[in-house]
Amino acid sequence: MIIDRLIDGIKAKNAPIVVGLDPTAALVPEFLQKKYYKEMGETPEAMAEAIVEYNRGLTDAIADLVPAVKPQIAMYEALGLPGMSAFERTVSYCREKGLVVIGDVKRGDIGSTSEAYAQGHLGYFEIGGKKFPGFDEDFATVNPYLGSDGVKPFIKVCAENDRGIFVLVKTSNPSSGEFQDRTIEGRPLYELVGEKVAEWGAELTGEHGYSAVGAVVGATYPEQGSILRKLMPKNYILVPGYGAQGGKGADLVNFFNEDGLGAIVNSSRGIIGAYKQEKYASYGPEGYADAARAAVIDMREDIASALAG
Amino acid sequence: MIIDRLIDGIKAKNAPIVVGLDPTAALVPEFLQKKYYKEMGETPEAMAEAIVEYNRGLTDAIADLVPAVKPQIAMYEALGLPGMSAFERTVSYCREKGLVVIGDVKRGDIGSTSEAYAQGHLGYFEIGGKKFPGFDEDFATVNPYLGSDGVKPFIKVCAENDRGIFVLVKTSNPSSGEFQDRTIEGRPLYELVGEKVAEWGAELTGEHGYSAVGAVVGATYPEQGSILRKLMPKNYILVPGYGAQGGKGADLVNFFNEDGLGAIVNSSRGIIGAYKQEKYASYGPEGYADAARAAVIDMREDIASALAG
Repeated sequence: MIIDRLIDGIKAKNAPIVVGLDPTAALVPEFLQKKYYKEMGETPEAMAEAIVEYNRGLTDAIADLVPAVKPQIAMYEALGLPGMSAFERTVSYCREKGLVVIGDVKRGDIGSTSEAYAQGHLGYFEIGGKKFPGFDEDFATVNPYLGSDGVKPFIKVCAENDRGIFVLVKTSNPSSGEFQDRTIEGRPLYELVGEKVAEWGAELTGEHGYSAVGAVVGATYPEQGSILRKLMPKNYILVPGYGAQGGKGADLVNFFNEDGLGAIVNSSRGIIGAYKQEKYASYGPEGYADAARAAVIDMREDIASALAG
Repeated sequence: MIIDRLIDGIKAKNAPIVVGLDPTAALVPEFLQKKYYKEMGETPEAMAEAIVEYNRGLTDAIADLVPAVKPQIAMYEALGLPGMSAFERTVSYCREKGLVVIGDVKRGDIGSTSEAYAQGHLGYFEIGGKKFPGFDEDFATVNPYLGSDGVKPFIKVCAENDRGIFVLVKTSNPSSGEFQDRTIEGRPLYELVGEKVAEWGAELTGEHGYSAVGAVVGATYPEQGSILRKLMPKNYILVPGYGAQGGKGADLVNFFNEDGLGAIVNSSRGIIGAYKQEKYASYGPEGYADAARAAVIDMREDIASALAG
């Protein structure tokens, strides 16, 4: 199952790390933007090509170090159609390189509509006995606000095609508590959502004992992470918010189980924009991929020492 | 402001109605699918072309009767890139015909990511002093689970570009109560979200006194609609769930203010798939657009008599 492949990758590379491929105009090195603007004019199409080259460079530099990447579709959707094409090509390139691809799409709707989203991201359009993939990610992130009948169609498509999802439980942003932390019968909403994730995931358990239905819990909320870890023992936690958003290595311990598994930590800007940080500035913009590689190695050490400590 | 244009359209056409352009393989008439399969092979590209022609036929048939359409992006995303192209062309065609387009995209993420979504759906990619629109809808639907800092970037982009949003408050699906109805300090979560919608929308008020920040409340929950109507007096309510999902004309009264405004009711399958219903079967599949027109006229009467009663 896909969750086993993710865990095998984490073990083999000793890296519970996913790199967020979230290319913004501020992060894509200027020399790449200029190259395509010169070729194709100052257009979204040119920016999309620059993004694809940027992502390929990053992917080549980190593919032996990490098991997974997580392209944030919003950064592609921002460019309209050319951006969506860049997203599709990024997913496809990363999967060819053996990486597990988590599409950070945060979709979710009423039942029949969620099924259409699931088809587009984790399934196929079938016609005349042929199957055509859509964006074809391994995992997708899902918003739970609509309840079980908005989530279950994703799980159905996951079961059919050996894919997985991560459901938003406690997000990493400052205002996540506005609704997620509100108390219901003495317990915060995110705990109720976490319990549902455990329930939804029960039928999709892999060889390592973990479900292909995981949860998103922000590194910026380690106390809540600790509670949710216990509430969803068999569900992998995708942990955003490390690095640029303020989450620290020491805080990550709470998200792991005693078997050393159970969590995968995302960093986006901290890795793909490493060349812009003082620490890695010597690589220069043209060395953005090597800077990203160095940042992944540092992140791996930070997490390993936190888990060892 | 865009909300005034929507209200003017509702008044001029005496139709608080939005038609959901949610084309699935089950709804797109077979003769159209076959036409493009014959031309282009049995591919998602061919299906996307059939969808575009279907939508154009529907739009031409209803544009003088309703102020707005609501394409559900999931139905397009299900086909991958060709579907996204069909979505973009549908939005563009409908806007050319003078219709207000509500992109039912249910996006929402942390701040910087929500801003990227807002750019892609309600804003522009700017480069070299030029502005390139993305999918370019007039309104988008937004998921509130991440709280204020996931919603406010949409409002910022709306203010800059005269666009609007509808925030999910109480959705139309059977399991919407699983989280949305849970009681927090004596009140259901959807009321707290509704209050936030009123607060978020305060700065974007148009000439008719209504905000460009609206709410989604399902026709299937008229009692909650009545409460939310009072809680958000200045926010337009987009009401899905009428017709195929079970919402009835008589239930709609609760969603309107005493000025006869304040709500716009969506019907998707009930209109675009009217030719498949016994009542409109005489139009046949080739008369799908005329069947849709007849169904809109009947819906308009159903709502008018409910509001008059």
